[in-house]
Amino acid sequence: MKKVGIVGDGYTAAELLRLLAGHDGLQVTAILSTENIGRRIDRLYPQLTGYYDLICEPSDAKSLIGRCDGVFLALPHGLSVPVALQMLEAGIKCVDLGADFRLKDPALYEKYYEKVHEAPEMLSQAVYGLTELYRDQIKQADLVANPGCYPTGAIMPLAPLLKAGVIENEGIIIDSKSGVSGAGRTLKEASHFCEVNEGIHAYGVGTHRLGPEIAQELSLAGEQPVEMVFTPHLVPMNRCILTTAYARLQNGVAASQVREVLEAAYGPEPFVQVLPEGVMPHTKWVYGSNQLHIGTYVDEASRRVILISALDNLTKGASGQALQNMNLLLGFDETTGLKMLGVHP
Amino acid sequence: MKKVGIVGDGYTAAELLRLLAGHDGLQVTAILSTENIGRRIDRLYPQLTGYYDLICEPSDAKSLIGRCDGVFLALPHGLSVPVALQMLEAGIKCVDLGADFRLKDPALYEKYYEKVHEAPEMLSQAVYGLTELYRDQIKQADLVANPGCYPTGAIMPLAPLLKAGVIENEGIIIDSKSGVSGAGRTLKEASHFCEVNEGIHAYGVGTHRLGPEIAQELSLAGEQPVEMVFTPHLVPMNRCILTTAYARLQNGVAASQVREVLEAAYGPEPFVQVLPEGVMPHTKWVYGSNQLHIGTYVDEASRRVILISALDNLTKGASGQALQNMNLLLGFDETTGLKMLGVHP
Amino acid sequence: MKKVGIVGDGYTAAELLRLLAGHDGLQVTAILSTENIGRRIDRLYPQLTGYYDLICEPSDAKSLIGRCDGVFLALPHGLSVPVALQMLEAGIKCVDLGADFRLKDPALYEKYYEKVHEAPEMLSQAVYGLTELYRDQIKQADLVANPGCYPTGAIMPLAPLLKAGVIENEGIIIDSKSGVSGAGRTLKEASHFCEVNEGIHAYGVGTHRLGPEIAQELSLAGEQPVEMVFTPHLVPMNRCILTTAYARLQNGVAASQVREVLEAAYGPEPFVQVLPEGVMPHTKWVYGSNQLHIGTYVDEASRRVILISALDNLTKGASGQALQNMNLLLGFDETTGLKMLGVHP
Amino acid sequence: MKKVGIVGDGYTAAELLRLLAGHDGLQVTAILSTENIGRRIDRLYPQLTGYYDLICEPSDAKSLIGRCDGVFLALPHGLSVPVALQMLEAGIKCVDLGADFRLKDPALYEKYYEKVHEAPEMLSQAVYGLTELYRDQIKQADLVANPGCYPTGAIMPLAPLLKAGVIENEGIIIDSKSGVSGAGRTLKEASHFCEVNEGIHAYGVGTHRLGPEIAQELSLAGEQPVEMVFTPHLVPMNRCILTTAYARLQNGVAASQVREVLEAAYGPEPFVQVLPEGVMPHTKWVYGSNQLHIGTYVDEASRRVILISALDNLTKGASGQALQNMNLLLGFDETTGLKMLGVHP
Repeated sequence: MKKVGIVGDGYTAAELLRLLAGHDGLQVTAILSTENIGRRIDRLYPQLTGYYDLICEPSDAKSLIGRCDGVFLALPHGLSVPVALQMLEAGIKCVDLGADFRLKDPALYEKYYEKVHEAPEMLSQAVYGLTELYRDQIKQADLVANPGCYPTGAIMPLAPLLKAGVIENEGIIIDSKSGVSGAGRTLKEASHFCEVNEGIHAYGVGTHRLGPEIAQELSLAGEQPVEMVFTPHLVPMNRCILTTAYARLQNGVAASQVREVLEAAYGPEPFVQVLPEGVMPHTKWVYGSNQLHIGTYVDEASRRVILISALDNLTKGASGQALQNMNLLLGFDETTGLKMLGVHP
Repeated sequence: MKKVGIVGDGYTAAELLRLLAGHDGLQVTAILSTENIGRRIDRLYPQLTGYYDLICEPSDAKSLIGRCDGVFLALPHGLSVPVALQMLEAGIKCVDLGADFRLKDPALYEKYYEKVHEAPEMLSQAVYGLTELYRDQIKQADLVANPGCYPTGAIMPLAPLLKAGVIENEGIIIDSKSGVSGAGRTLKEASHFCEVNEGIHAYGVGTHRLGPEIAQELSLAGEQPVEMVFTPHLVPMNRCILTTAYARLQNGVAASQVREVLEAAYGPEPFVQVLPEGVMPHTKWVYGSNQLHIGTYVDEASRRVILISALDNLTKGASGQALQNMNLLLGFDETTGLKMLGVHP
Repeated sequence: MKKVGIVGDGYTAAELLRLLAGHDGLQVTAILSTENIGRRIDRLYPQLTGYYDLICEPSDAKSLIGRCDGVFLALPHGLSVPVALQMLEAGIKCVDLGADFRLKDPALYEKYYEKVHEAPEMLSQAVYGLTELYRDQIKQADLVANPGCYPTGAIMPLAPLLKAGVIENEGIIIDSKSGVSGAGRTLKEASHFCEVNEGIHAYGVGTHRLGPEIAQELSLAGEQPVEMVFTPHLVPMNRCILTTAYARLQNGVAASQVREVLEAAYGPEPFVQVLPEGVMPHTKWVYGSNQLHIGTYVDEASRRVILISALDNLTKGASGQALQNMNLLLGFDETTGLKMLGVHP
Repeated sequence: MKKVGIVGDGYTAAELLRLLAGHDGLQVTAILSTENIGRRIDRLYPQLTGYYDLICEPSDAKSLIGRCDGVFLALPHGLSVPVALQMLEAGIKCVDLGADFRLKDPALYEKYYEKVHEAPEMLSQAVYGLTELYRDQIKQADLVANPGCYPTGAIMPLAPLLKAGVIENEGIIIDSKSGVSGAGRTLKEASHFCEVNEGIHAYGVGTHRLGPEIAQELSLAGEQPVEMVFTPHLVPMNRCILTTAYARLQNGVAASQVREVLEAAYGPEPFVQVLPEGVMPHTKWVYGSNQLHIGTYVDEASRRVILISALDNLTKGASGQALQNMNLLLGFDETTGLKMLGVHP
């Protein structure tokens, strides 16, 4: 039995607790908070009643030393750096669910997060935690930069095709539709029930922070800069993201290659399903699970490729993938605690 | 006071009745049905209680002659042709809310609706009922082919820009997100609450029938064939469509032209609002109204143009636009009965 | 053309603006705000785009004098008293959508609203604005205390039966289910989308403020104190309230009396529909309209009476009823601006 | 490893498969169907992709003999009797998720299910599967009549109080609010998204079939007939039921007894949580889990008792409880495969 701590008490922390309750090898020994110090976590999240009686502790990262083998950082961006530094120094493995270690270029971080990075040298040390793409590096790592929810949905279907030269690296359009929990538990007008329910809208058009993260990984996959646009939308549902990506088939490539490359890339993966020809993902099928579903459509005449992915933004898009990575960091089977199916209907 | 009849008793018929209850110059004299003959319409749609006590009559179009100045056809595709023929012969104006008269090319109709058109000669006679684009022709017409809900949302922002040569006519991507009422009242698994609620998915990917309708009108606007793709998605909400369209700015055109052209095209229109720079449409703002909102984003460096439109699929996307057209056909002010605002929150 | 002002800029203010846009005899001349001074109201509520370009003014009630014949107070409780005093002094009619003038007993106000009433003498002057029950007094009034949304749904079906001695005045249970807009636009955890969507819960069990308001009116109707309990629930929808009320048939009264009394009370009313035997209200049928629907079930053997009502909490439960009352105060036909039907589906 | 079969392929069957995927001691060997024979179950329910490749077999119950130690019957009422007979004869344990063995009185079955019971002698043999109340009998049983979803939510909070004489057995009101999956996957207007979403309504008022089931169990608990009324409502959500029950404190009983009796009854139970004083259940907290939460409110002056319970209708209200019972029938720990927490947000 190994021990983990969680820094933060928002939705991704709650999701970690949900998943960890089914993990036989990991015990949660501490939850650090700023706003709920002294409150029992099952009062904050009554779905945990009967499973956890942990009390939220002050956010003193040092207090975790000696009590944890691994730590999940579930913090707003900008706050993870000092905590991660302390943890690594103490030999504690870290999975950061925030954005602080995802971008390799500190200038990009500064531009999009409006903050000078406090420890740019760590950016190269951190491994980007898209487990299926970076598994070997993650196993060797101390610090994993867990991917954003949108990037996970966008990169997974596109990266293998760019890597294999099946699609063009220009003119890629990524149109994503997310549930509301991605915006967190913080109160804001955009998360008010009456402002969201029975409606859909785009936001961050042309300027969303997760665009550069997607571009970075797609460029790495294709080994040359991609030209792409990313538009997120908010859908009246709690969880999940559907991503509809549009690309062009490379000249000389057969339409059948799209499916072949994806099936080769993900065939044996426990958490990625390339759906049968003609079946398009529905976010409900992955609701509450760590699964990512992919569907494909290719029109050979027009050279159009449409790729659709579905994931649960809190599970595969955040805490589930974080646990998948922590399993690797601490030597567990990657799927431990993550075998639950989608809750549908 | 003029008299109108409605052929059909589905959601678009109910929406017509809602709107017509507020129209001072039109009286509904008949509703024809196949499945609910003899039932009071306010038992079928109790929201009409206290406003209508009409009884659904058998679908004998002849019975409308002498009782109607205009008729709305709210029928599944393939059923409108014979009714329209009878009405026109009797000098009764028709607005067809179905798809039977929208495509100018009978071969396209046959391909997508799997049916030989019964009166192809009427296709040129019918005017496509996008009121803001074809107002003058509609005023002279006897038969209006009311546009599909998705086409209305796609064509309105794109057509003026193609016409003005502001955007390229290739590589247009139209990613639409619709509420469920667009699928009608018919029972099908795809409209079952538990299969729709808390989820989003794409359907008809690459093959949806309304693609050719959009292509026809965009090609007419740009006076050359467009190359485009249309992907509809189903969102867990009753009403409305958000359309996110991606295009490229033509070489030599300034980014500011996008907004200038749209504002010039729609500035004085009562039912189209080009939202202020930086404001993106939210479908809630048009819920239950005949309004169509448009937002724009242009990135001059990459030449990307993103156009977003929102409409209520049952109102501006169907019955509201149908009444707008009927008003023109029968000599009323175009806005009569259509001045209600969006129901938000 | 008469002139009205609105004090407040929350959801009930927005709903007033929606309704007033369709009122031929009333013009909105001012909106007072505290948090949005200087902002255009159609930026705050883009559904108003193209209809209103009013700018939110500071909350100086005096500024309304000379510019308004009537004023709607759409304020949190405790803030209406000084404004109402100024308006009445200046001869301006007032409809208060808040709770400050509803309870006749200042001690009860103090207990439930935790505030000493600043002008208890006004409590007898104000007329309770359940239009159908107090129409004659409202016509003569200067100040109307517009009922709460829950009370409207509870009192309407029960009051005539208590008045007629058809049901017992003990053991009444009122179980209400409301959409989220009743909680207003203010940000709170209970209105966060993810905390509300896909769930239902009770709140204020045994202690909700609107219980005494209901009890006051039911006691007045039956001319003796009622013994009752009121439990509100929050349902994942924007609008409307369904109220399920349980009572006992008085000894010696026939089951048929329930329906007879309600039909006699509300038969000619434009905004109340006693649905046919066997039809139970659905909140969707009144969505966005000023209608209130009532259904009844009586089991003569067990003497049980079940009464179910549906209304839109923002319309008949707030702004619609407020306009209905203002129409009476200013001499308009009561239904002006209120004839829209429910938006369904 | 023991083997189980499932007869039926509706939502409760899908939920059984979801839960059984996490059960180490049970393997699903067969799924019988009538409408989907020959189809892979993961095509029918794509959330199972990667976990099950079973093919739906024809509904020949005999085929299960030799392949199953236990069988779940997930069939419409009236169809379970012959299957159960065959299974029991072959020594296979049965949990029937339908209503065929719940009512002890065949006359009541005939009245409410409009069908003469084919094997009334089995009614006394079957044990009512409310595990917490009948655990010892279930362990000895061959056939378990799994409770209805509404009855589970109503009986659990009320039965211990009736048994202990804490509340009166007259005048009990049970007002329940359910998600839509309780109505099954069958297509009907009442489950059409647009007829359910953004609305709430009561149905089966005074006449719902599950009323007698509740009355039977409450009468058994109190050892005398209860007088009660049950009103179900449909809420726009996929899963869960909130039940608000109203009763009277017995004369001479202290208010504190309510909580004491419930805590004593359910304190050590793994799947029942009596929430802390003042905390009322929210259905979201049990979403997707086998938990049942109970909250209490007592007003000693008026002798009113309000009990609120929340459960997931497909889990604790159907398939979860069925698995809980099957675990007992086949000798597993009762909680095997059922330890997942509620999926919230």
